Amino acid sequence: MEKLKIIPPDAQIYAQVKASWDKIAKPLDGLGQFETMFAQIGAITGSSSLSIEKKVILTMCADNGVVAEGVSQSGQEVTAVVAGFMGQQASSVGKMARRAGVDVIPVDIGINTKETLPGVRDCKVMQGTRDFLQEPAMTEEEALQALSVGIDLVRECKDKGYQLIGTGEMGIGNTTTSSMLVAALTGRTAEEVTGRGAGLNDAGLLRKQQVIAQALEKYEKEIRSKHALSMLAAFGGLDIAGMAGVCIGGALYHVPVVLDGLISSVAALVAERIVPGVREFVLPSHLSKEPAAKWIAEELKLHPVIDAGLGLGEGTGAVMLFSLLDLALALYEDQTTFDTMEIAQYERYGETE
Amino acid sequence: MEKLKIIPPDAQIYAQVKASWDKIAKPLDGLGQFETMFAQIGAITGSSSLSIEKKVILTMCADNGVVAEGVSQSGQEVTAVVAGFMGQQASSVGKMARRAGVDVIPVDIGINTKETLPGVRDCKVMQGTRDFLQEPAMTEEEALQALSVGIDLVRECKDKGYQLIGTGEMGIGNTTTSSMLVAALTGRTAEEVTGRGAGLNDAGLLRKQQVIAQALEKYEKEIRSKHALSMLAAFGGLDIAGMAGVCIGGALYHVPVVLDGLISSVAALVAERIVPGVREFVLPSHLSKEPAAKWIAEELKLHPVIDAGLGLGEGTGAVMLFSLLDLALALYEDQTTFDTMEIAQYERYGETE
Repeated sequence: MEKLKIIPPDAQIYAQVKASWDKIAKPLDGLGQFETMFAQIGAITGSSSLSIEKKVILTMCADNGVVAEGVSQSGQEVTAVVAGFMGQQASSVGKMARRAGVDVIPVDIGINTKETLPGVRDCKVMQGTRDFLQEPAMTEEEALQALSVGIDLVRECKDKGYQLIGTGEMGIGNTTTSSMLVAALTGRTAEEVTGRGAGLNDAGLLRKQQVIAQALEKYEKEIRSKHALSMLAAFGGLDIAGMAGVCIGGALYHVPVVLDGLISSVAALVAERIVPGVREFVLPSHLSKEPAAKWIAEELKLHPVIDAGLGLGEGTGAVMLFSLLDLALALYEDQTTFDTMEIAQYERYGETE
Repeated sequence: MEKLKIIPPDAQIYAQVKASWDKIAKPLDGLGQFETMFAQIGAITGSSSLSIEKKVILTMCADNGVVAEGVSQSGQEVTAVVAGFMGQQASSVGKMARRAGVDVIPVDIGINTKETLPGVRDCKVMQGTRDFLQEPAMTEEEALQALSVGIDLVRECKDKGYQLIGTGEMGIGNTTTSSMLVAALTGRTAEEVTGRGAGLNDAGLLRKQQVIAQALEKYEKEIRSKHALSMLAAFGGLDIAGMAGVCIGGALYHVPVVLDGLISSVAALVAERIVPGVREFVLPSHLSKEPAAKWIAEELKLHPVIDAGLGLGEGTGAVMLFSLLDLALALYEDQTTFDTMEIAQYERYGETE
């Protein structure tokens, strides 16, 4: 995996798109980060004719053995139930995506059930991970298999004409695996990375912190090795591995990947550590309310444009960004330029003195 | 104006809407500020059956005499040109709004032209304000007339069935009037409040700061009086007065008002100072890149959910928030509850110990 060759985004097209924005009749940089996000999208796809009409969310669903340690209000059985609703487009992301004109592919990458869930893509690597407080969540082979699921789905989506892919996840216990990975990958303490997830009380929060602190000790050697794949295997989850695969796939096949919240961003960090250069192919959407989110944003130098205290997951924040990108693109596609208006274009102040 | 009686939003409905969000199958507070924004919308309109299908942006266009002092790259003639395009829905907000299914009413509240602009509502109070560095921008009567334009438009929009109103503005020189008002109303210095607007160079920025600093001295007595209407009259602009009227109208007629960026937020602050209580009827959309924006947000305790370095105006940021609200509402309108899924609802941690 470390030997994958990434061709970086095209800097010339980046500059072309930025220059086109300056010609549109509006204040310089008036659309702020939307202008730079579209420059990045152009640079990734290799074209300044921007198009993001066909969009999809890949929602990775998986279970986490660590739930046995009492880190969540819900039990593992809830993952399969919610995934079942997701297969009928009746979960949160399905409803939001329908309204936004976005497709959703729910993926069973490791739900703890033998059942096949209608409408959910079966890419099951295993029936949930093992409890990382007792033993590693996965073997490295299992982690690689989950990464491949993500990479392959990006190729398939590109073949189907999708121009923008969003990451999403669902699985009880996955704020614990995410916080764990953030602590392990960025050297933060259990206290700094642990939040209330879907709604833990004070006792639950403390329990979750303790689990993470204990695992930081238990896996001290693996963490010191700084080997991202080992850490991914040690802590899980399969959803994070799958989304890391999506990020790597985006870089390999030059499809921009929009991250959802904390858990997606952890996946991007894992992907960047495994295949350096991947981060140039991802766009953040929102800053999760989970405390670990800001450490990842800092680490990957991401500046999400939505800051609303979201913590829903499933890819809902990515759908929100899709919608904003669509609105911003309306100005680019149907240009009213300073020329059209017969007024002078604003000069860049660097050039006006 | 100070004697207007505002009936505050309904706290009981606020609590009802929040409780409904908790029943929907998602992490507690998973939609973050969107949950509280909708609770606010319900409390304002007096109903927990939320509906925001019919939305409109009122874009106030006006000229500012202070442009004569060299505070902008463009001259006043540009305001009428852009308003002309706006009348054909061919300016930035028109394109974005069409894509979002939102109506736009461009309003001539004081463009410096004798021409009538097709597609632009004629509510002209005067042909642009006077240069505030030389003399007050308006009389208090003129300011009151502009406020009335905004109030009356809200009543009209409510009669037409609009459920959500966004503010917008366009007018060369209006980051100068806004920054001026922020300095005057919040006690900040010229340096703290002044930004590059549509694209000033270093020399231009310095000139703009000097103009504001000089006016802070010239109008020291008015500023010390803390009389918001006098300050609005002293500095303008007619667009800000019109939008302040929209905010007051929102409070009077119980229609939620979504603010755009800096200039809209200044209008909300002016409105709150003239008619206390108005701020409970406004929702912020984005945090402008202009430095004065953060002082207003602090003053009015607003937490805009979009932070993308926008500085376009016209109401474009409000359209973006409309779009996000539409997506969030998809979950509320077509509820999949914990009951539907036959799983236990998350308990609020305050109640679980």
